[in-house]
Amino acid sequence: MVMKTPVGDHRRRFTCDDCGAIHYQNPRVIAGCLIEQDEKVLLLRREIAPQAGLWNLPAGFLENGETVREGAMRETREEAMAEVDLQYLHVVYNLPQFHQVYLIYYGALPQGRFGAGEETLEARFFAKSEIPWDEIAFESTKYALEKWLSRKPGDRQVYEGSLSLK
Amino acid sequence: MVMKTPVGDHRRRFTCDDCGAIHYQNPRVIAGCLIEQDEKVLLLRREIAPQAGLWNLPAGFLENGETVREGAMRETREEAMAEVDLQYLHVVYNLPQFHQVYLIYYGALPQGRFGAGEETLEARFFAKSEIPWDEIAFESTKYALEKWLSRKPGDRQVYEGSLSLK
Ligand SMILES: [Zn+2]
Ligand SMILES: [Zn+2]
Repeated sequence: MVMKTPVGDHRRRFTCDDCGAIHYQNPRVIAGCLIEQDEKVLLLRREIAPQAGLWNLPAGFLENGETVREGAMRETREEAMAEVDLQYLHVVYNLPQFHQVYLIYYGALPQGRFGAGEETLEARFFAKSEIPWDEIAFESTKYALEKWLSRKPGDRQVYEGSLSLK
Repeated sequence: MVMKTPVGDHRRRFTCDDCGAIHYQNPRVIAGCLIEQDEKVLLLRREIAPQAGLWNLPAGFLENGETVREGAMRETREEAMAEVDLQYLHVVYNLPQFHQVYLIYYGALPQGRFGAGEETLEARFFAKSEIPWDEIAFESTKYALEKWLSRKPGDRQVYEGSLSLK
């Protein structure tokens, strides 16, 4: 691997000596959703690292060929075995140090069915008073839950946060 | 390059025979902004391909280490020589076939200064009636302009669009 500036670019990029591929290092999008039903929120207990055993929202890396909404729906299908009806974009959460941007929708389960899918130990709805704050996997999830609790009826703004490392 | 499934992943990825690097192929974020001043919008005439000579919003690929807002501010500084005050997220526009997601903010120029920066032939504010619709570089830009024109005062929702190829 060597650092060089590709034609038409103005930054140096890792470029492979062997195959010539440019290893772009741009942030990746994580698409997810906060699903509410009867004033409860769906959380999934993670089966895999990082943060195995802790609770998270359905979410995962956006793949080529998908819109952000399609990515959030696919991840919900895979991890929570559920068909989500996405309503609005709830949170944009940046992790610049980790080269990630979370885009988290608010949604509902019109069919009500869900379960523990891929990479998931357990899927469960939690009432607002039951949220396991000490066992939440990621700061992005905490932020999305906090903004869910504080959002006023009819408010459709996107809440934007960033991880600041101490 | 070979296709194989990295440890902990569940999809096959291009992997370099030589250096072992995984060439992830995830969508990239383009951060940009629509800047309004005196009911006019700032457009930049592109110096470079694609769509050289056509008009666009300040926008470009988000880089590692940046939040989306920081990326939009940097691109505005580079291309329009301006310090933008970003206000709210205006548009999410998906180009799944091109592996891109545009995140476009609405903003203002508190200092009022701007100019033609990198990759820009000309920077100009256009009144609503002057927008050069036949010379707009990208569908994402058209969408952001249309939603700017139709947004009601006080409405803070994010408008979401996708490119559908005919
Ligand atoms: Zn390589
Ligand atoms: Zn290679």
